[in-house]
Amino acid sequence: MKQKLSIVKIGGNVIENEIELDQFLLNFSKMEAPKILVHGGGKLATKLASQLGIKSKMTSGRRITDGKSLEVITMVYAGLTNKNIVAKLQALGTNAIGLSGADGNAIQAHKRPIKEIDFGFVGDIDGINSELIDTLVRADLTPVFCAISHDGKGQLLNTNADTIASELAIGMSLKYNTILYYCFEKKGVLSNVEDEESVIKHIDTHSYNDLLEQNIIVEGMLPKMENCFHALQQNVSKVCIGDISMLESDSNLFTTLTL
Amino acid sequence: MKQKLSIVKIGGNVIENEIELDQFLLNFSKMEAPKILVHGGGKLATKLASQLGIKSKMTSGRRITDGKSLEVITMVYAGLTNKNIVAKLQALGTNAIGLSGADGNAIQAHKRPIKEIDFGFVGDIDGINSELIDTLVRADLTPVFCAISHDGKGQLLNTNADTIASELAIGMSLKYNTILYYCFEKKGVLSNVEDEESVIKHIDTHSYNDLLEQNIIVEGMLPKMENCFHALQQNVSKVCIGDISMLESDSNLFTTLTL
Repeated sequence: MKQKLSIVKIGGNVIENEIELDQFLLNFSKMEAPKILVHGGGKLATKLASQLGIKSKMTSGRRITDGKSLEVITMVYAGLTNKNIVAKLQALGTNAIGLSGADGNAIQAHKRPIKEIDFGFVGDIDGINSELIDTLVRADLTPVFCAISHDGKGQLLNTNADTIASELAIGMSLKYNTILYYCFEKKGVLSNVEDEESVIKHIDTHSYNDLLEQNIIVEGMLPKMENCFHALQQNVSKVCIGDISMLESDSNLFTTLTL
Repeated sequence: MKQKLSIVKIGGNVIENEIELDQFLLNFSKMEAPKILVHGGGKLATKLASQLGIKSKMTSGRRITDGKSLEVITMVYAGLTNKNIVAKLQALGTNAIGLSGADGNAIQAHKRPIKEIDFGFVGDIDGINSELIDTLVRADLTPVFCAISHDGKGQLLNTNADTIASELAIGMSLKYNTILYYCFEKKGVLSNVEDEESVIKHIDTHSYNDLLEQNIIVEGMLPKMENCFHALQQNVSKVCIGDISMLESDSNLFTTLTL
């Protein structure tokens, strides 16, 4: 039987709130190893860009990553946020190692091709370096990824953290029994958006189709759910969606997705 | 016989000049592995701090690293500079992995004790994690260190890059035949400060004392030289001082220090 490997993704909402981040990191540090953390960016980068007078460029309502924005993202995601998380995890006894996708050629990507919109320095993932990650994990290290990949030609690329997490889980599933955890602001997928406690505890392909037909999966959740089922179809064992308390050993209020 | 391990330190003057940095990285990528790169910070952090309205604090002519300055340093050193160097090295075929001292608990330090001056978040090194670095190097990775360490209690610390390089060389010398390269703006230690070509090709303990007596080692070079001889006394095989052309295989104009 393959060894279990947990891949946990946290979003900006957790990173921005220091108390919540510390609670999350405490929960994460108690999780059984091997494990991998993927963190999004949060509003710190937007705040820094604004302080530096760099305006967010939008085209058709989509954010564009130009050269200056990429610099800010690299400073905040790979520098400030990543290294502070690593230092905090070290203090909690977790031997964390912070990585961007360029480090050890961990996440290979290409600049998103220009169709209607030129998204700028945004990466679409080609593959992950499972051999490197396996080496690190076997050395009892806990990789902590920021949402940056590279094209192998010297260019860093801003990359969706949800996708990095699912591609890591998919890429590692040949050697490991991978479980993907998406931590976000809600306790799980809700059957009633007005009721924070109405968590649907288990969703599989069949019940997912029912939920879609009944319009219970709301718009913001759709890409997230599609990403989850994509991971499950690519041999990820299980996907869990919930808030940071999901990682506590006695937690049972979150959503589990299986095929 | 122990395997050779090269530890190369570059300063801010190389990092600030993109053409020089690219030439350096090309030279470095051609060097025989295993090898480690340590980079200083340069004026980018000072520039960013000034853009953000963060004033450099000085006490008795010494720079103080307060909380805000540490944030800027972490963004620039560990983020922008480190990740761009890693991405560029990847493009040159060197499997670089960027690290701060917190990553994998690579460089353990403590906040410099307050005597006459409180330097703020500045680290004095206690030790390096030679086992981690050995694991990375054996996996054909090239560690790229920025000048940041940590105290193991969650605090990142601004740390002298020259000292990081020498402590890495000293720490790895049990397993490896370590050679330390300090790249700076001059071709080596000069016998005449007015003549850039007057490089002293070889200095040992004996001739060093002669140079000191003759006042040939100028003030700025003194701490650097002390650091070099300290490393040699702690089993580092050889220290080389010169500009970036020192790394070229046919180079012979630089200073070599031995005991």
